[in-house]
Amino acid sequence: MASMLPPAFDAEMSTLLGVDGWFTGEQIRRAHGEDDSRMSALPDAVASPRDRGEVAALVRACRRHGVPLVARGAGTGTTGAAVPFAGGGVVSFARMTRILDIRPGDRCAVVEPGVLNGDLQQALQPHGLFWPPDPTSFERCTIGGNLACNAGGARAGKYGASRDNVLGLVAGTGTGEIIRCGGPWTKDATGYDLTHLLVGSEGTLALIVEATLRLVPRPLAQAGLRALYRDAGAAAAAVSRLMRQPQVPAMLEFMDASAIALLRRNGSEVPDAGAMLLVEADGDHDSLPLALPALADAAGGGGLLARDVAADGSARDRLWAARRALSPALRSIAPGKINEDVVVPVSRIPELVAGVESLAAAQALPIVVFGHAGNGNLHVNIMYHPDDPAEDARARVALAGLFELVLALGGTLSGEHGIGVAKRDWMDRAFDAPTLATMRAVKAALDPDGILNPGKLLPLP
Amino acid sequence: MASMLPPAFDAEMSTLLGVDGWFTGEQIRRAHGEDDSRMSALPDAVASPRDRGEVAALVRACRRHGVPLVARGAGTGTTGAAVPFAGGGVVSFARMTRILDIRPGDRCAVVEPGVLNGDLQQALQPHGLFWPPDPTSFERCTIGGNLACNAGGARAGKYGASRDNVLGLVAGTGTGEIIRCGGPWTKDATGYDLTHLLVGSEGTLALIVEATLRLVPRPLAQAGLRALYRDAGAAAAAVSRLMRQPQVPAMLEFMDASAIALLRRNGSEVPDAGAMLLVEADGDHDSLPLALPALADAAGGGGLLARDVAADGSARDRLWAARRALSPALRSIAPGKINEDVVVPVSRIPELVAGVESLAAAQALPIVVFGHAGNGNLHVNIMYHPDDPAEDARARVALAGLFELVLALGGTLSGEHGIGVAKRDWMDRAFDAPTLATMRAVKAALDPDGILNPGKLLPLP
Repeated sequence: MASMLPPAFDAEMSTLLGVDGWFTGEQIRRAHGEDDSRMSALPDAVASPRDRGEVAALVRACRRHGVPLVARGAGTGTTGAAVPFAGGGVVSFARMTRILDIRPGDRCAVVEPGVLNGDLQQALQPHGLFWPPDPTSFERCTIGGNLACNAGGARAGKYGASRDNVLGLVAGTGTGEIIRCGGPWTKDATGYDLTHLLVGSEGTLALIVEATLRLVPRPLAQAGLRALYRDAGAAAAAVSRLMRQPQVPAMLEFMDASAIALLRRNGSEVPDAGAMLLVEADGDHDSLPLALPALADAAGGGGLLARDVAADGSARDRLWAARRALSPALRSIAPGKINEDVVVPVSRIPELVAGVESLAAAQALPIVVFGHAGNGNLHVNIMYHPDDPAEDARARVALAGLFELVLALGGTLSGEHGIGVAKRDWMDRAFDAPTLATMRAVKAALDPDGILNPGKLLPLP
Repeated sequence: MASMLPPAFDAEMSTLLGVDGWFTGEQIRRAHGEDDSRMSALPDAVASPRDRGEVAALVRACRRHGVPLVARGAGTGTTGAAVPFAGGGVVSFARMTRILDIRPGDRCAVVEPGVLNGDLQQALQPHGLFWPPDPTSFERCTIGGNLACNAGGARAGKYGASRDNVLGLVAGTGTGEIIRCGGPWTKDATGYDLTHLLVGSEGTLALIVEATLRLVPRPLAQAGLRALYRDAGAAAAAVSRLMRQPQVPAMLEFMDASAIALLRRNGSEVPDAGAMLLVEADGDHDSLPLALPALADAAGGGGLLARDVAADGSARDRLWAARRALSPALRSIAPGKINEDVVVPVSRIPELVAGVESLAAAQALPIVVFGHAGNGNLHVNIMYHPDDPAEDARARVALAGLFELVLALGGTLSGEHGIGVAKRDWMDRAFDAPTLATMRAVKAALDPDGILNPGKLLPLP
C-alpha cells in the first residue's frame, strides 16, 4: 500500500529529517506498524529524529498538515498503543539512544527515550545503583516506552513503577513546543505536576525527548521464600500481613491453583497446593538474615501448607525457576492467550481468584492467574484456541466478565500494561463521565488538534 | 467592610448551606482571611460544606455568579495560597473531618480533607501504620491542605512527600462536577494521572473532597547519628554517600555554620563546626544495630570532625533537641524572617551554602541555612528588622539573589511550601514560556472560568 501523505508534507519531512530520518518504503513502514498485542496497521511514514529540535519541527509540520503521529519505543507493548490505526507517521526513537548523564551523587540519570531499559541497568551497575522498573522485556524495551505505558514489573511492590521513578521530563506536546518539567531533585512543590501526568499517557499528550530518572541503591544481597497455601484466601491474608510489616518484600508473587497445576504438569518441582507465594527480601549480607525470619513469620498463619526458605543464590534460583517457567508453560494449554494485568485492592484478591474460577467454569476455558500480589496487580491469562470461533467468542465473554468482576471489586483495568486500544472501550466503565470529560479536556489542552496517537487510551466519542 | 457578594448568590448559598454552613459576618470572614505568610485579605463569605454534594453545588453557583472560591485547610501555609486576595468565598473543610475508612489489609486510609494530619497519625497507631508526610505543623494542619501544597517534612527523603503518598482523590473541579481518580491500589496504568496533578495545585484546579492515602508500616525503632564537618562541602559529600547506600536514612538534616553558631550562642551543647548532619535510621530492634554502622561509615570521610551515635531513645532526643531548638532560636537574631524552602540537586548543596554566605555578606544580613539534605530541600532563613526600611529592602534583594542562585544551580523554587503568591512572580524564571503555557492550558481545562483560587501559583498574565 502506497503512502497517503500530503506530498508537500512528505517533501518537507525529507528535507528536515534527511535520508536517515524519514522513511516511506513499505518494508520499514510495516516493521513499525505492530506491537506485542499482535495487532498491526501500516503507517504512511516512519520518522527517526535525531534530537528534540527535529521532534518539535516534526510535530509542528504534522499539526499544519493534519497528519497523526504515533510514538514508538521497541514495540513490546501489549495493548496496541503503538499501532498506527489512523495512519500518518510513526516516530521511532532509534536515533535518540544516549545516556546523557549518570549522576550518582544526585541519585539520578538523564537519558534519551530510545535507551533500552537493560542497557541503562548495565551502565548503572558500576555505580551501585539501579532504575526500579523491571518489565519482563527489559532487555528489549525502551525507557521512553516504559514511561509512556507506566511499565512496572515484580519489584514495583517495594520500589514503585515507572511513574514513581521519574523526576523530570522534557517533552514535545501536540502544539509542537518543547516543555520541561521536574528535574534532578526528589521533592518539588513548584507548579503543576506535568511530569507524572505525561507518564502513562501513551504518547497521547506529548513525545518524551529526555527523562531524568530516580535511581535507587542496588541491594547487595537477596534471599527468597516459597510459601504454599490451602487456598487463595489464605495466601491473600498472608500478602496483607507481608505488606504491613516493616520488612517490605522486594518481590511478592502469587500463583493460583491453575498455575501450580500447570507447573506440576510441566515437570516443575512444586508441591500440590491451592495457592503459592514467592517472597523475596533484599538488603545487605548482615541485615538479610534478619529480614527473612520476619517475612517467613508474616507468610505463616492459617492455611499455610509448607514454607521453604532459600537463603543462598542457587536455592533462590530454583524457587524462581518455577515463576519463570510459567509464561512458556501457558503455551502447552492452548495457542491463544489473553493476558490482562488487572488490579484489585490486596484484600480482594481471594474474591478475584474465586470469580475467575467461576468465569473459567462458565466458559469452559482454562484461566491461569499469577502476578504481583504486593500491588494487587495480577495477570489473568485466558487460554483458548483462536482458530475455533466458538472458543474465541467464549474467550471474549470471559474477558468482559473479568473486567466486570475487577470493577465490582473496586479495582481497575491495568496495573502496568496500559490501555491502548485493547482496554479503551472499558474506560467509560472504569471512570464516570465527569472524570472522562476532565481527561478529554487535559488531552485538548496539550494536544489541541488531536494529532498525537489519536484513538488511544480515551474511549471514542 | 461589608460583603460584596451578589445578593441573589448570597441568598442561594444561605438556602443551600444553612446557618451552620454559610457565614457573612465580618469576624468569621476575618478569621478565614490569613495564613502563616502573615498576609491577609477579607473574603466576602465563608462556606463550610458538609459533603461533596454541597461542594459541587457551591462551585456551580460561584461559576454562575462569577464569584472566586479559595479552599482553606487550617491556614498553616506560608505562601499566601489560602489568602482570598480576590475576595469571594473561602471554603472551610471544618465540617468534613471524618476518617472514612482505615484498611490495614490494603495499607490505605480514606479521609475527608478536614482531618488533621496528627489525628490521622493517632488513629493509625494501633494498626502499626503511618502516613509519611510530617510537616512541623502536623498537629494543626489538615490532610487537604497537605495535599493542596504537596507538604513534606523531614521523613520525605525516605518516604516521600504528600504527592508520593496519595493513591486516589475525589475532587470538585472548577466546572462544578465531581471527579474520581485513582483508588485503593498502588499500581495504576489506567488513564491520565489526575491524582498527582491535583496534589500541589493549591486549590487552583479542584477542591479535594476525599483522599485515599498510602500508608506505610511503622518502624519499630529509631537510632540517630550526629556528624560534624569542617565545611558544607564535606557535609554535602557525606549526604551523597548516605543517599547512595542501601540503608536509606529515614531523616537526614543539614545545618550550616550560621545555624551551628546560633545554637551555640543559645546554649545548645553543639561543638563548633562548619556544618552538621543529623542522620536517623529506622527499622526494627534487630536490624537497626546493623543499619547504624553503615550510616556512620557513609557519614565519615574527608572533613569529618566528630561523629556521635545515639543508639537509644534518650540519646537520640538530645541530638534532635538541637534541630528543634533552631526555629525558636532564629527569633533571637531578628524579628523578621523570610523562610524559603528551595531545592537544589544534592551535589550542589555546597555551592548553595557558599552563595548564601556571599548574599549575607553583600546585604549585611544574617542568613541561616538548615533542612532536609537528603532531598536537597533546604530552608534558607533571611533574618531582618521589618520596621527598618533599609533592612527590609536589603532582605528583598537577598531573596531575589537566592532565587537567582537556586535556578543557576539547576534547582527549583519550592520543595514543600508551594508557590501561592509569595513565589508566583518567580515562576516565569523557573519555567520557560511553553511550559507555563501548558500549565495555563491545564488550568483552563479544569477550571474554565478561572474561579478557583485566582491569582495563585501561575504568574499573572
